[in-house]
Amino acid sequence: MTVIYDRVALIGLGLIASSMAHAIRQYGLAGDITGYAKSVETRRIALEIGICDRVTETAGEAVAGADLVVLAVPVGAMAELAAEIGPYLKPGATVTDVGSVKQAVIEAVAPHIPEGVAFVPGHPLAGTEHSGPRSGFATLFQNRWCLLTPTDRSPPDAVARLRALWEAMGSQVDEMDAAHHDLVLAVVSHTPHLIAYTMVGVADHLRRVSNSEVIKYSASGFRDFTRIAASDPVMWRDVFLTNKEATLDILGRFTEELFVLQRAIRMGDGDHLHSYFTRTREIRRSIIEAGQDTAAPDFGRVGAVPAAPRPGT
Amino acid sequence: MTVIYDRVALIGLGLIASSMAHAIRQYGLAGDITGYAKSVETRRIALEIGICDRVTETAGEAVAGADLVVLAVPVGAMAELAAEIGPYLKPGATVTDVGSVKQAVIEAVAPHIPEGVAFVPGHPLAGTEHSGPRSGFATLFQNRWCLLTPTDRSPPDAVARLRALWEAMGSQVDEMDAAHHDLVLAVVSHTPHLIAYTMVGVADHLRRVSNSEVIKYSASGFRDFTRIAASDPVMWRDVFLTNKEATLDILGRFTEELFVLQRAIRMGDGDHLHSYFTRTREIRRSIIEAGQDTAAPDFGRVGAVPAAPRPGT
Repeated sequence: MTVIYDRVALIGLGLIASSMAHAIRQYGLAGDITGYAKSVETRRIALEIGICDRVTETAGEAVAGADLVVLAVPVGAMAELAAEIGPYLKPGATVTDVGSVKQAVIEAVAPHIPEGVAFVPGHPLAGTEHSGPRSGFATLFQNRWCLLTPTDRSPPDAVARLRALWEAMGSQVDEMDAAHHDLVLAVVSHTPHLIAYTMVGVADHLRRVSNSEVIKYSASGFRDFTRIAASDPVMWRDVFLTNKEATLDILGRFTEELFVLQRAIRMGDGDHLHSYFTRTREIRRSIIEAGQDTAAPDFGRVGAVPAAPRPGT
Repeated sequence: MTVIYDRVALIGLGLIASSMAHAIRQYGLAGDITGYAKSVETRRIALEIGICDRVTETAGEAVAGADLVVLAVPVGAMAELAAEIGPYLKPGATVTDVGSVKQAVIEAVAPHIPEGVAFVPGHPLAGTEHSGPRSGFATLFQNRWCLLTPTDRSPPDAVARLRALWEAMGSQVDEMDAAHHDLVLAVVSHTPHLIAYTMVGVADHLRRVSNSEVIKYSASGFRDFTRIAASDPVMWRDVFLTNKEATLDILGRFTEELFVLQRAIRMGDGDHLHSYFTRTREIRRSIIEAGQDTAAPDFGRVGAVPAAPRPGT
């Protein structure tokens, strides 16, 4: 591989940024990597495990001279960060982000990007239920989608170059409008996560069923929910607060639909349930055919081979 | 291992019964295995792949002379099946079942079990999203719970012998009251499945987001829901129709809880969301500590080693 950006600055050194650092190094995609995180402890760990060439004490210092600046902090922290780094950005540089919500990030970041600096919002659909600088690994983005949502501040050559970086890290790249991105993600990610959180909360509150039973018998379907519900609380709080409209829209549809199934249960309408469940099975088949999962029975991941990491954002 | 039952009859040759056949053979737990399934095609496949010593044309023929009769059909088919086999059961035999609901099965089956025959309801918390006679494998029950819900028709020696069989197939066995079983399963399995079905249905109906987008970007959380929602439609229809009361109870709590989170999103109450998500993360940790899952990031199951199969019923 060839160097795509001479100097890369990663701001926020969690799962995504540390995975980018590993991948960029492994494939030789940057001359050097500078890192910054707000937490002293995160900076200390980043230095200790050596994922960056340099770790700075301020975000401004990290971005000064960088050709690519990656904002990899919770969505709610983007505005303050953008305001802080704005004056230090190099003319000709590109700023991108990896936030799970795009309209809110654009609103928060764009006003602080000076003339002559490109801003190309992005979102890698990749993650695990773990977080922090130690959780990253080079193959996180392999075979996963990265969505770019260009704005009028995104010149085509800057978009093309960022696309090349993601492709070099193993991603497939799609471009779409930020509003459409937020709706799609509300369907395939944000609402499923909220529902998983809710179900885990219900189980926790139910006094007639002890927590030890919930935990012992979790493998019966509930376990997948708890894995989803174990994701980073700050990141997810910000996702719901900033993708409010689309999430509430999809949640409304979800409860409507749930009430119809609930009524079918109450009325004993077996035909309705059967045809509904048959249709959802077909969707599963399409996902397997699209290569986003395998047909192999889920063997509980014990001893799973780190072949294709799974997204979770 | 030693033979626990001389003759075993498996009625219904789907995922659970065919896995029992493989496990019983592999560990030498029965003298011989007779199989029966209502579908001619299933019987033909069972003969072809040789999972039983004998496949009969009627259920009565299959159970005649059997020391253990396993009813492994959808819950809604139990009553008719029990009525059919009742006259053929051997004095001293034990009848068990593997249904996901226990009170309804007891009501359906118990009246047809003659004096001198034991009835020990059971439920292995094991499964995959696949079904049919070809989907079984010997290790399905390894490290998974099997719940027995003895009744006044379950003599202690019959319960102990059935427990020995499940333990020999690799399960851990717990005994509980049928009503409590149905509530616990409504929490850890039935309601999560209904929610997953619903979310997949919502995505399917949403015209603004194309199906191809839902499928392409499914790895963002939605994929786990589709796996759950791919389970056997007949089995799940019967679960919801027969565990109606507990499922509706838990669903009510779920929507209540969901509305509180939905309101927090609408009101922008980040503190509420953050503390909720932090608590659910702790539950996840307990599950990992209890050995019902691993802390390894979920690598999408590609290339997963078949070490500990996962339940899904």
